[in-house]
This record gives sequence, structure tokens and C-alpha cells, in this order.
Amino acid sequence: MDTERFEKQLAFILEADKEKNILRQTHLSGHGRRENDAEHAWHMAMMIYLLKEYSNEEIDVAKAMMMALIHDVVEIDAGDTYAYDSKGLESQKEREERAADRIFGMLPQDQRDELRALFEEFEEAKTPEARFARAMDNFQPLLLNNSNGGADWKVHHVSKNQVVGRHCTTGLGSEEIWQYTKAIIDEHVRKGNIRSE
Amino acid sequence: MDTERFEKQLAFILEADKEKNILRQTHLSGHGRRENDAEHAWHMAMMIYLLKEYSNEEIDVAKAMMMALIHDVVEIDAGDTYAYDSKGLESQKEREERAADRIFGMLPQDQRDELRALFEEFEEAKTPEARFARAMDNFQPLLLNNSNGGADWKVHHVSKNQVVGRHCTTGLGSEEIWQYTKAIIDEHVRKGNIRSE
Repeated sequence: MDTERFEKQLAFILEADKEKNILRQTHLSGHGRRENDAEHAWHMAMMIYLLKEYSNEEIDVAKAMMMALIHDVVEIDAGDTYAYDSKGLESQKEREERAADRIFGMLPQDQRDELRALFEEFEEAKTPEARFARAMDNFQPLLLNNSNGGADWKVHHVSKNQVVGRHCTTGLGSEEIWQYTKAIIDEHVRKGNIRSE
Repeated sequence: MDTERFEKQLAFILEADKEKNILRQTHLSGHGRRENDAEHAWHMAMMIYLLKEYSNEEIDVAKAMMMALIHDVVEIDAGDTYAYDSKGLESQKEREERAADRIFGMLPQDQRDELRALFEEFEEAKTPEARFARAMDNFQPLLLNNSNGGADWKVHHVSKNQVVGRHCTTGLGSEEIWQYTKAIIDEHVRKGNIRSE
């Protein structure tokens, strides 16, 4: 064993532990507390495996799962940006690139390059794995929020246009899950949990 | 899309959400709060991908990762059994088998059988994937506990025999990581965080 290499890997793994303290806007099922990044990523990776039959394209499952597991690691420095916070979204890219330099930079060079590439691939949605992982990034919180009667939409006074604008990228990864998503959104518009305009 | 099939898959995914509320004895790095099952599984799956070069045998990475992601799902019904709780360990097997029947039983039959088999394979450590996933199941909390000055061992007055007895199975998955583990254990025995007998 190359101990120097191993200890770089361990340093990254220990740094990633901090994701467990980064809270998202989504709440756990059963109207629970706010979810953290590590829990969200765990759920997404499991969903990639279980729902892969609905992907529009064949995917390399291990690659898509790893992409899901690490896609939020930059939030250790950059923080979570709520999907409907337009001001935060403006500076998000720059903050996240700086964080990626530092955090992936803890790894040995080959894995630094590999994980950085996985992270960028996810962001750019340019491969089947990235498109399906991003569909799960949308669908996982929607599933929780739906189970909680749409409470997360309600409290933020979110409009149908905003919700569709975010979730429409689900269709790039899975047309079938996007159709299912649309029906859920329409139901919450009908119930008044999402503003109709 | 077969909606009945899809909704069975979603029911399982939503049920699994409850793992986020099951606390382990391990504490997060930085002397943080107790870790939950979902966070532990996320960390393990990431470690499988990043540390696979140390596996004694070639592994199917997606399979090993999924095994890690779901290995504690039975604790939703059966609760977490601390690795050094000999009384709890006696009834653990039966409690977990009942839980596996109910929880994996929510899935469509093919996936129920597949995940149940993955779960049993992990428990029995009879394949390369299971042996490496189990090594990560040991090494992940050791890494956190080591970063916290061995506080989790100290508070439970754990002996070297107990710690070695638990962690020696790491060697079945990765001889190199087991050697590294032994050095960490010895250091904590020297410092008095683990009882020497």
C-alpha cells in the first residue's frame, strides 16, 4: 500500500463527512426535520439503481451512482442554494467551482481528475448517466414533498412555472418519470399547494 | 410505464426514508452528533468506489455499492444493534429477517428477490462484493471514531479483544486496510482509549 496515496483518499472521505451537516429545504417524510446533503445523495443513488429501467438511455450504473453520491460535495464550502432562489443561483457556479478545486484537490491526482470530471459531467448533463442522475436529483425531493402534502412548495409560495421550470429537465433523463412528475405537479396546483401562475 | 410496478418501487423508496431517523453509536467528525443509517450507507458506498483498488478480489462496483446502500434497511423495524451489545446481537438475526420480509416485500417481485438476495449476501459475506462492503462497514465508523480521538470506544469502555474481534473481518475484504486498521487500534490502546484486555 502507498500510504501517502491512501491518506489522501482518507482525507477526502473525512472532509466529505461535513455534507451530513448541510441542510436542504426539503423535509423528510412524515413531516420530519430538514434533510441533509448526504441523506439526499444516498436516496438518489438507491433510486438510480432501483429505477434505472425508466432511463431514456442505457446507463453505467456505478458511474451514475457515484455521480449522485458526490454531486453536492462542493456545498461544504459553497452552501446549499435553494432551487427557487434566483439571487443565490447567480453566484452559485463560481462558488461551486472554487469549492471543487479545493475539495477534489485533496485526492490523489488520478482520482481528483476523475471525480472532478464526474462532477462537471453531472452539472452539464451531457451524458446518459448525468441526465438520469439529474432526473433523480429532481424526483427525490419531489417524492418527499409530495408525501408531505406539498408543504415545502406551500411555505415558499412557489408557482407552477417555477416548479415546471425546475423539473422539466427530468424528461431528459426519463420521459416516463417526467410524465409522472407532471401529474403530481398538476395535482398540487389543483389543491392550491403550488400557485397556478 | 406499468404504474402499479412503479408505485411499488416508490413505496419502498419512501419507506427507506425512515433510515434517516435511525441513530448509530458513531459520532460525526468534529465531535458532532450521532450518525444515522442513511449517512453511514452513503459514506460506505462512496468509500467502495474510492478505495476499490484495495479490495482483495475484483468486485462489481455497482453491486457492492447497492449492497452498502440497503444493508441497514431492516433496522427500520429491527433498530440498530451496537456492535458490542452481546445481548442485542442474540436476537438480531430473527428481528432482521422479519424486517426484511416486510420491507423488501414492498417491491415488485423481481426486485424484492434481488434486494433480499443482496441483503443476505452481505450478511453472509460469501462473495467478493459482500466482503469488501463489510470491510467498509467496519472501516467507515473506525475512521470517524479515530478522527474524534477514539471517543466512541472510550465512552463504551471497549476492550482491544472486542475491537479486534469486530474489525478482523475487514481482512477478508481488504488485507491492506486491515493492516492499517490494526495500527489505528494499537495506537488507541497505547493512548488508553481502548482497554488493553
